[in-house]
Amino acid sequence: MTPPEATAPVGETGRMTDTSGLSPERILDVAEETIRRYGPTKATVVDVARALGVSHGSVYRYYPSKVALRDAVAERWLARVSTPLGEIAGSAEPAPARLRRWLRELSGTKRRMAREDPELFDTFHRIATAARGVVTGHLDILAGQLALIVADGVAAGDLVADDADRAGRTLLQATARFHHPAHVAEWADPALDDDFTAVIDVLLRGLGAR
Amino acid sequence: MTPPEATAPVGETGRMTDTSGLSPERILDVAEETIRRYGPTKATVVDVARALGVSHGSVYRYYPSKVALRDAVAERWLARVSTPLGEIAGSAEPAPARLRRWLRELSGTKRRMAREDPELFDTFHRIATAARGVVTGHLDILAGQLALIVADGVAAGDLVADDADRAGRTLLQATARFHHPAHVAEWADPALDDDFTAVIDVLLRGLGAR
Repeated sequence: MTPPEATAPVGETGRMTDTSGLSPERILDVAEETIRRYGPTKATVVDVARALGVSHGSVYRYYPSKVALRDAVAERWLARVSTPLGEIAGSAEPAPARLRRWLRELSGTKRRMAREDPELFDTFHRIATAARGVVTGHLDILAGQLALIVADGVAAGDLVADDADRAGRTLLQATARFHHPAHVAEWADPALDDDFTAVIDVLLRGLGAR
Repeated sequence: MTPPEATAPVGETGRMTDTSGLSPERILDVAEETIRRYGPTKATVVDVARALGVSHGSVYRYYPSKVALRDAVAERWLARVSTPLGEIAGSAEPAPARLRRWLRELSGTKRRMAREDPELFDTFHRIATAARGVVTGHLDILAGQLALIVADGVAAGDLVADDADRAGRTLLQATARFHHPAHVAEWADPALDDDFTAVIDVLLRGLGAR
């Protein structure tokens, strides 16, 4: 197999570029690192292309604008939260226990991210706030997972809810303090876990859990 | 009665100063206006004293530091929210309806403040965030009012709660999305009122309301 260097085209800038290893995933890896380094406002597609060693045209072929690239980075970041939660949502555990586990996992993931790399967490929070459509899509995914659990619980006679979708949305919103990045300053409160348990208890009782 | 001008002492700056009308309330009025004009970081006690036409020593006599003055401004601002709520909490209305009215009033007041003067709302939110002790005190007042209503409801057989204080705290935290200033960007959502009603419904059912 010919090594990529040998066939690399000359980019728009006249530099040798290698686009053979270029994929959306690879671009997003580097874009995330670039945003982390320069901040979400200053990082440009040209910076990302430079770090990849390709022309900015090669990046634009996958992401037609800086906003499209930023949204894709935000979307992937949020998927890292929602994907493992989807596995919990789809598990066979009785609905009340599954709701508890799902809500704790959401809160725990956000708190861990904020604790391990506060600066990156803040950066991504700002990106996500700007990418409203991406956030709305993410929240719909999360509320949908909760709705699925509620519907299972209603079918099994473990929960009572006229409208599982509505109940999913309610569970997500009523627990915002424990997972919404806007509350990050409150997560150091030593009473947080007890408070969260108390909120979940009342919500589950409100949904008819015994 | 001698007009104040005639007896005004000479201040530290050599200017004629009149401290006869000086009161904590008057200082806070002017401090609030000064913070509004210069922002919470830039506004100094000297600015406040100048606007009052008194020496800064006269202001320090009431508020020993810039932080003490800022906290007092934040406290008064928050009292404008909690005082009318205290009247609802102390009313004779059945507890479930009273809880609904109280929660709607808290959310409505915050949303009105944010809508009518977004810049001032943001400024005060930043002041309050810096004045953690003041905010904690404010939240304790609010949770205490909710606990009072819950206790009334338990006594009347309208609600079920082992620990009214805990229930008050839970009600406040589970409705954060609808009153916490960190969520101001979400308050323009047209679904907000329906979402809030759904959250209150589940919480009240969770507290045994029929």
